[in-house]
Amino acid sequence: MKFLGNEMITVEDGILKIDGYNATELAKEYGTPLYVMSESQIVKNFTRYVEAFKEYTEKTGKEFIVGYAYKANSNLAITRLLSKLGCGADVVSGGELYTAKLSNVPSEKIVFNGNCKTKDEIIMGIEANIRSFNVDSISELILINETAKEMGKVANVAFRINPNVNPKTHPKISTGLKKNKFGLDVESGIAMKAIKMAKDMENVNIVGVHCHIGSQLTDITPFIEETRKVMDFVVELKKEGIKIKDVNLGGGLGIPYDKNTEIPTQKDLANAIINTMMEYKDKIELPNLILEPGRSLVATAGVLLGKVHHIKETPVAKWIMVDAGMNDMMRPAMYDAYHEITPCIIRNENKKEVVNIAGGLCESSDVFGKDRELPKIEVNDIVAILDVGAYGISMANNYNARGRPRMILTSEKGVYIIRERETYADLLSKDIVPNYLL
Amino acid sequence: MKFLGNEMITVEDGILKIDGYNATELAKEYGTPLYVMSESQIVKNFTRYVEAFKEYTEKTGKEFIVGYAYKANSNLAITRLLSKLGCGADVVSGGELYTAKLSNVPSEKIVFNGNCKTKDEIIMGIEANIRSFNVDSISELILINETAKEMGKVANVAFRINPNVNPKTHPKISTGLKKNKFGLDVESGIAMKAIKMAKDMENVNIVGVHCHIGSQLTDITPFIEETRKVMDFVVELKKEGIKIKDVNLGGGLGIPYDKNTEIPTQKDLANAIINTMMEYKDKIELPNLILEPGRSLVATAGVLLGKVHHIKETPVAKWIMVDAGMNDMMRPAMYDAYHEITPCIIRNENKKEVVNIAGGLCESSDVFGKDRELPKIEVNDIVAILDVGAYGISMANNYNARGRPRMILTSEKGVYIIRERETYADLLSKDIVPNYLL
Ligand SMILES: Cc1ncc(COP(=O)(O)O)c(C=O)c1O
Ligand SMILES: Cc1ncc(COP(=O)(O)O)c(C=O)c1O
Repeated sequence: MKFLGNEMITVEDGILKIDGYNATELAKEYGTPLYVMSESQIVKNFTRYVEAFKEYTEKTGKEFIVGYAYKANSNLAITRLLSKLGCGADVVSGGELYTAKLSNVPSEKIVFNGNCKTKDEIIMGIEANIRSFNVDSISELILINETAKEMGKVANVAFRINPNVNPKTHPKISTGLKKNKFGLDVESGIAMKAIKMAKDMENVNIVGVHCHIGSQLTDITPFIEETRKVMDFVVELKKEGIKIKDVNLGGGLGIPYDKNTEIPTQKDLANAIINTMMEYKDKIELPNLILEPGRSLVATAGVLLGKVHHIKETPVAKWIMVDAGMNDMMRPAMYDAYHEITPCIIRNENKKEVVNIAGGLCESSDVFGKDRELPKIEVNDIVAILDVGAYGISMANNYNARGRPRMILTSEKGVYIIRERETYADLLSKDIVPNYLL
Repeated sequence: MKFLGNEMITVEDGILKIDGYNATELAKEYGTPLYVMSESQIVKNFTRYVEAFKEYTEKTGKEFIVGYAYKANSNLAITRLLSKLGCGADVVSGGELYTAKLSNVPSEKIVFNGNCKTKDEIIMGIEANIRSFNVDSISELILINETAKEMGKVANVAFRINPNVNPKTHPKISTGLKKNKFGLDVESGIAMKAIKMAKDMENVNIVGVHCHIGSQLTDITPFIEETRKVMDFVVELKKEGIKIKDVNLGGGLGIPYDKNTEIPTQKDLANAIINTMMEYKDKIELPNLILEPGRSLVATAGVLLGKVHHIKETPVAKWIMVDAGMNDMMRPAMYDAYHEITPCIIRNENKKEVVNIAGGLCESSDVFGKDRELPKIEVNDIVAILDVGAYGISMANNYNARGRPRMILTSEKGVYIIRERETYADLLSKDIVPNYLL
């Protein structure tokens, strides 16, 4: 069993440990299903971005900012940890902005994305004096300008362009194609038109160009293509007398869900982006560089532990039934995503059998893994589903009236509960029964 | 615009009304996104089951029970409404059993499904003296017997069989195929083996055979095939001296998401099932009949209202951006599901344009409808997404740090809030920040 990317995992005498803690013991102490987040892994993932892109600042004298994409996992302990490390925030809703503020992220490190920002959200962003709204439509630009005017303020705006770059990833998470809902089209001149409009507006301040082409990219080439399209546009803007201070290239770097395939690292990404940016150094003053990684900061740091309650043999398969489920972690059901799975007690690495691992929900798509060759698993064993730190708890729900799981943080300082388990009562806490139904 | 199945919807002078209430006014008063559930429609849907299957009781003298599949929508006002009407409950978790008890569903109308019942859930079910655990595996049967023994009780058990019937629906919601995780295989003799084991156990009482082949079935034939497989098995069991009191044929009747296609009704289902059951009247004493509809009781009764905040024209499409999103209603993103969409003010039925309707989340799959020909929609209009009463709020989540929406019930007696909107604070109410991150 390989743990590519999961450096916090070790196996000693067949016992799986996370940051040195016995996973089976953690499950016993904190109950299952259980999310475990590794502090050491998050720190490593973040530090690698900073290290890899230091060169950009050295070469250009410009800032490099990581704006963590909160949508990946906006648990308050995680966002505060990242904020303490110096990480910024990419927020896409009032709720995420609220969380970023509670995480002490400085205003100049907050960017606001999304295709349907409401007036209330725009007011929040202006009050917080964020680094930029990444404007998605002309309609939004007009609303931001009007709102800022009403407030007697000037709002910082960047423009999300749609570069029509194919990220070669799952269609549900490719975002920079012409047919996607995001951004302002460059080729047809809509993006230019929007920025020229902004130039004539009194209550917006043009600061940047933004782009995000998709998630879980395992090839560097689309990032190079994206960078060129953005920088070419920045050059165009210069010709129109518009100076761009920030270039934001979004998130998207993939992680090795498949433990047999090495994929590009932060270093590879940095080389590609920095080299491409440097091609433009004689044409324009190079901008500050912002990235918005989500998955590559936290995915590998997360493990979902489930307990095996039943094992069933059918004529065509052996099923391992665990108490975690698709409500806790939607990715397999939602994106047909592959996640590595391993028992936390490995009885005999050389004696494997082929099994399906199913969750506990009454729905056929609630299956974590099919036809997996795994060391023998028994009832009451703990099973670990890897790489669930991103788009795991953030998409979790109460389907089948199941409370969302507890989450713990393993750190050098100890083990901390960072999210409490939902109770049956919690599930009904927002429901109100009218008098006549009492 | 047709509203097949949505009898609570009317359009007067271009104004869309739900149970007589102006939808645009409801959105204004209660905010958006907003779930609206129609009491009249739920009552109609339920009554149609009772009316259609009355004939079974008349012909056989046996009970007919509707066990509402709580997973479709377990809002407490909805479950209490159905319970008041005499409806039972199909629960699949401790949380759903808890909700059924709070809804005053009598024990003899509660059945417990699922492939991963935990010991705690089994204890709850035995304490509640439910009509039956629908046993999914031999491992579960053993645990139920042991647990009942420890409690000094006898647990009622039915056996979920896997009939290997193709329901001809979306693969994620077909459940009765050999490759699915559910049930005990009949052909290979596993189901028979389990029941014979149960016969020799002291703390279980065999009461029934259960089956559920899938959801959103739009063809009656698979139900007939299912009924035959179940009844043939009941005849087999009789030969082994095992009498079956209850036959439970699950849920699965579809609803007309597509307003241009009529699909089978409760009456069609009743004719098919009753006729098939009657074929066995000379072979065995016919059993009580249980059904577990979810979708066909509540889906058509639900509408999701979203407000249009932005409209964007790209070179390839016109996008209507509404503040509802995939976190409120996952079905399009999750199952590529089609839902009818209509503006709530219909300016000119004859002047249509082709648009895409997108939700407010920063994810490409957050699109409610593509290439829809709709009457002209303007910013600030309210848009209605139909048939969201089932598998809507029950799968809703907080992705993108968005609170789940408010839900109201429209009834003859007035309009009632039956679920409160989640606040930003609610989103963080389970998060705990360790001291050293403060
Ligand atoms: C605008 C934007 N930025 C950043 C991200 C984060 O992407 P990833 O988690 O792949 O790094 C996303 C993800 O959807 C996004 O939409
Ligand atoms: C065991 C069981 N019964 C009933 C239902 C309800 O099905 P429907 O909503 O299609 O009626 C389901 C749905 O998944 C189920 O799994």
